[in-house]
Amino acid sequence: MKGKYCCGELKTRVAAIAAKAGIPAQDAAAIADVLVTTDMRGIHSHGVVRLARYLDCIKAGGIKPATEPVVLKESPNSLMVSAAGGLGIPAAMKAMGMLVAKMENQAIGIATVNHSDHYGAAGCYAMMAADRGYVGFSMSNTCPLVAPAGGRAAAIGNNPFAYAAPGKKYRAVLFDVCMSKVAAGKLVIAAEAGKRIPADWILTRDGRPTDDPNEIWHDAVMLPFAEHKGYGFAAMVEMMTGVLAMSGMMSGVHSWNTQPGRDADTGHAFIVVNPEFFGGKDAFAGRTDAMIEELKRCPTVEGVSEVLYPGELEWRREADALTNGLTLPAASEKELERAALTAETF
Amino acid sequence: MKGKYCCGELKTRVAAIAAKAGIPAQDAAAIADVLVTTDMRGIHSHGVVRLARYLDCIKAGGIKPATEPVVLKESPNSLMVSAAGGLGIPAAMKAMGMLVAKMENQAIGIATVNHSDHYGAAGCYAMMAADRGYVGFSMSNTCPLVAPAGGRAAAIGNNPFAYAAPGKKYRAVLFDVCMSKVAAGKLVIAAEAGKRIPADWILTRDGRPTDDPNEIWHDAVMLPFAEHKGYGFAAMVEMMTGVLAMSGMMSGVHSWNTQPGRDADTGHAFIVVNPEFFGGKDAFAGRTDAMIEELKRCPTVEGVSEVLYPGELEWRREADALTNGLTLPAASEKELERAALTAETF
Repeated sequence: MKGKYCCGELKTRVAAIAAKAGIPAQDAAAIADVLVTTDMRGIHSHGVVRLARYLDCIKAGGIKPATEPVVLKESPNSLMVSAAGGLGIPAAMKAMGMLVAKMENQAIGIATVNHSDHYGAAGCYAMMAADRGYVGFSMSNTCPLVAPAGGRAAAIGNNPFAYAAPGKKYRAVLFDVCMSKVAAGKLVIAAEAGKRIPADWILTRDGRPTDDPNEIWHDAVMLPFAEHKGYGFAAMVEMMTGVLAMSGMMSGVHSWNTQPGRDADTGHAFIVVNPEFFGGKDAFAGRTDAMIEELKRCPTVEGVSEVLYPGELEWRREADALTNGLTLPAASEKELERAALTAETF
Repeated sequence: MKGKYCCGELKTRVAAIAAKAGIPAQDAAAIADVLVTTDMRGIHSHGVVRLARYLDCIKAGGIKPATEPVVLKESPNSLMVSAAGGLGIPAAMKAMGMLVAKMENQAIGIATVNHSDHYGAAGCYAMMAADRGYVGFSMSNTCPLVAPAGGRAAAIGNNPFAYAAPGKKYRAVLFDVCMSKVAAGKLVIAAEAGKRIPADWILTRDGRPTDDPNEIWHDAVMLPFAEHKGYGFAAMVEMMTGVLAMSGMMSGVHSWNTQPGRDADTGHAFIVVNPEFFGGKDAFAGRTDAMIEELKRCPTVEGVSEVLYPGELEWRREADALTNGLTLPAASEKELERAALTAETF
């Protein structure tokens, strides 16, 4: 099917494909929810385009389709979890869910996940906290993709990081970035669309600038945003995921794109803050609104019609997809069809 | 005195000047330690160059020189503190000190400070945690200085953020940034040196590009790094400091440069993570070393001799200043002399 999707129907379809590949129903539903929601927010690089690759990894033995996360250590406000080589999305949802459940009488809490895999868009887990009135942080390492400042080889992951904070009139502030100039998924989409890219996004594997997004399939090296700043934030995420979570770190994380049969050993970390231990949840949400409104009042540079608060574009797109249906890019359509075919072979 | 300073003697001198202005001895020593240590690390924009301005604010009534921070709310792993209109550096040191003291049996903890002022270099407080084997985060809002992506007015602070994580062979990874393309202090130093700046660092107050750093004294608008990414990180810090800490937020924070008589109402937030609740402090520090060494092995682009880990340059400069003495830039010398003269008038 091409054209507009009903979001709920698409979730059902994605979950059915995942289940067909041996993923337990609850986990398949979690994957469908995270991927389709991400498409609804317009982040197609991290939406259903990813499903076929998850199935490739399961087929190749790199991801176990039906494992339960194991709690390795626990305290009243912390969890150290192993995803036991399973899928990243359900493991992350379970870890963040367990953490949020601990938060009512805690000012701050933390959960780490090791031995995991690609967890989709970081912001989805941060929103699990914001939807309960908490501030949420979410981060993950990835296989080496980004050159440190001054380097010409992929030494560190592009290490996505997100936070979300609830508003009152406004749903939430939501910010979700990776540390490279652009997300790997954007390169994938450019490659599928046959487009060239700006020459300062990536280096070839031997350190030369290039405008060919297909280099992403040949060990391209991504450059960090704002040079040492992006590099430093990538190192922060590596600290919290690889180093702290006792997961794979740096070259110990394996690419699910180029090595689908390898255990990725990805790490995630989640932090939740409870405003009740400060000015209270209600005051916090009201103040978030005030911050948003002050940002919206900012006059714009020529050619820009309004200042957006972080997440505003995503909420507009999500509302539009719910009301008018969701349009997927060609690359997502193609990968979704490939996922359906792959699932048939399980 | 011009030329090289003995670091210890310079701290004594800075503390004596601060004390002369009515700052209690312990707080004066804290200020001297933070400012001189920052110069030793080569971050002259946040070193002793700032002292005279602190005294200007005290003289103008904008900062109270001798207040004690007040704990407004407390839990086993959290503190909500008011600096009660006092100096930022001693308030931040006390809040982070109290938080670190809570951490032995906690996986994660948080302290916020409101009604504070400029707290110097964010990284100094993150290092208080790293020096005890913990991961430390430190952040502060500032008066509006930065345009949000698409905006042409200063709507949000440049909101410094730092983290530090301890190593074993290596002292620590230390990362300390603001969200504008450059720190305001760098503009001050360029202005004092009579230098021009790249045209994409700031806008004039009416939204025009400029290469004149003196515009910083005329309500210049700083641009965020990496457009929406720097903007989003600035909003994150504003969330944790202004919104959560119940301090001034956005335009509610007042410039200590242009309005020394105004209560700045700055907010700070600190987070500490204890690796004992994950793989253990020893394993963590060893893994930090491994991460550092993997970064150091990365081959470099032409013209760069080595990849540096975050903080490496600062540790080299600090060791050099301890061994060979500290050289201050002319602007710092001048402001230090002005501070000494100002202190005489108290």
